[in-house]
Amino acid sequence: MGDPRFPFVHVRRVRWGDSDPARIAYTARFGDFAMEAIEAFFQDRLGAGFYELNLDHGIGTPFVRVEFAFRSPLTPRDTLATEVRLARLGGSSAHFALAGRVGARLAFEAKLVCACVRLTDGAAMTPIPWPAAFRAALEPDAAFATAPSPSGRGPG
Amino acid sequence: MGDPRFPFVHVRRVRWGDSDPARIAYTARFGDFAMEAIEAFFQDRLGAGFYELNLDHGIGTPFVRVEFAFRSPLTPRDTLATEVRLARLGGSSAHFALAGRVGARLAFEAKLVCACVRLTDGAAMTPIPWPAAFRAALEPDAAFATAPSPSGRGPG
Amino acid sequence: MGDPRFPFVHVRRVRWGDSDPARIAYTARFGDFAMEAIEAFFQDRLGAGFYELNLDHGIGTPFVRVEFAFRSPLTPRDTLATEVRLARLGGSSAHFALAGRVGARLAFEAKLVCACVRLTDGAAMTPIPWPAAFRAALEPDAAFATAPSPSGRGPG
Amino acid sequence: MGDPRFPFVHVRRVRWGDSDPARIAYTARFGDFAMEAIEAFFQDRLGAGFYELNLDHGIGTPFVRVEFAFRSPLTPRDTLATEVRLARLGGSSAHFALAGRVGARLAFEAKLVCACVRLTDGAAMTPIPWPAAFRAALEPDAAFATAPSPSGRGPG
Repeated sequence: MGDPRFPFVHVRRVRWGDSDPARIAYTARFGDFAMEAIEAFFQDRLGAGFYELNLDHGIGTPFVRVEFAFRSPLTPRDTLATEVRLARLGGSSAHFALAGRVGARLAFEAKLVCACVRLTDGAAMTPIPWPAAFRAALEPDAAFATAPSPSGRGPG
Repeated sequence: MGDPRFPFVHVRRVRWGDSDPARIAYTARFGDFAMEAIEAFFQDRLGAGFYELNLDHGIGTPFVRVEFAFRSPLTPRDTLATEVRLARLGGSSAHFALAGRVGARLAFEAKLVCACVRLTDGAAMTPIPWPAAFRAALEPDAAFATAPSPSGRGPG
Repeated sequence: MGDPRFPFVHVRRVRWGDSDPARIAYTARFGDFAMEAIEAFFQDRLGAGFYELNLDHGIGTPFVRVEFAFRSPLTPRDTLATEVRLARLGGSSAHFALAGRVGARLAFEAKLVCACVRLTDGAAMTPIPWPAAFRAALEPDAAFATAPSPSGRGPG
Repeated sequence: MGDPRFPFVHVRRVRWGDSDPARIAYTARFGDFAMEAIEAFFQDRLGAGFYELNLDHGIGTPFVRVEFAFRSPLTPRDTLATEVRLARLGGSSAHFALAGRVGARLAFEAKLVCACVRLTDGAAMTPIPWPAAFRAALEPDAAFATAPSPSGRGPG
């Protein structure tokens, strides 16, 4: 488990196949960058990624809202470090705040909200409270996110 | 050219490869659905998609902001019809409002904003006004989007 | 149902997001082009795509072999027409021969082989004979593929 | 630079977004796995990936042939280690032999052939000999691949 006092950071190289004829990463690929970072966050914090949550725990985490602000282009020259913070842990939701950087340069910021649902049968998605063990594992991140910072501002 | 009094609609089948182990379309794939619909809108309205804008006209349209609200899941059983409206045509930007539907069912809503830039050298992106011919071709859509509707409400 | 005397053809526009910084369709994207064409073939011939085969019929069609020969590049200027022929229908396998064209220009040829398996539990994949109704629906395509053509040559 | 006496190995986690409703990695995604591994091989051996080869050196490496044999399914539980060997270095081509493994389990084998071309204008692709510095950097890998192994068998 990572230390929630420090945001989780997922690192990956931007690739040729992520890039478009404008010779920068394709807009839609940032969705993959973000989802991959949150998947790694869950694996680190819960010991279970989307796949294990679904297949082993019967829990789905469908995303209900996604927002991206693109700050600077990415290319295959870049190694992208995506910071994942749990901005808010709702009863049956999680609000993520992401910042993707190449060194000190900000490439994108994103907010993503997922629900926690029980996978009963096929399409049906019934919101449920986060299981206690998962809530306990996520709360330190959420507490950190909402704590006042030394400068008096929470980290957004 | 389509008739701007009617929103442009791009139709495509959701596919196996768009779908994830939860057996619904993968969150990040909606970015492809939206970009593909806007690409088709430009092809219809300007006679030039992203590729022709870049390579033939030296114009880039990098996206600066993307927002999705997911309303209901998509599966490969679904044929997705994505309505593309030009909510606002800025001096060197375009604001799109998308609604993806399967029949009468709303699957997602999205807002995307792109800039209009001159592609001078590699990475440099200098915002420029929309070329006159492109502005003329896009204005009917923008005018329609902001016109009061018979019920007194603009179309959102 | 299509007429198996004529090969099934799946048509789609090549898109910006399919293309890489060399400004041609990305090598790995041809895998999507081929799978999408075979998915459409199954939907046409069986009335069930990969998704319905899996979820409604408990049948998986994992691919065991895929080969591509790339003949000419594709760009977003191109509308790709992919011909799908059922070169051989094995007891519990299907051998596909694909040819992707833009007008008269050949873009790629591909051979793909899938198995027919029963989805019992999770990972286990037990080969089974094609269900009778599916075999009946596919046999005309296979018969056509192996019949001598008027010129004395089978269609490859 | 890696030591060509040992094959280059590229490691990556299989992800949720790589996987399909059969709950295994999607067939077409193996194309990405292979291309990503070869991209990393070039970055390691040449100090230049596909992107730098294209933009900095004016050299394209279009793939002309790709073959996959799928040996066992991959899921997001798996960390994939893809071994990249340079089976043959032609005058203006490179033949790769890949093996993707999860621990000792073989997931796939692949052969890919790329050409070396000069990027003159847009679509035109003129085969050229590998530049001397690149050939020198790649030859140890090719020599290793064709050398008799202690057991009298070359490595495939």
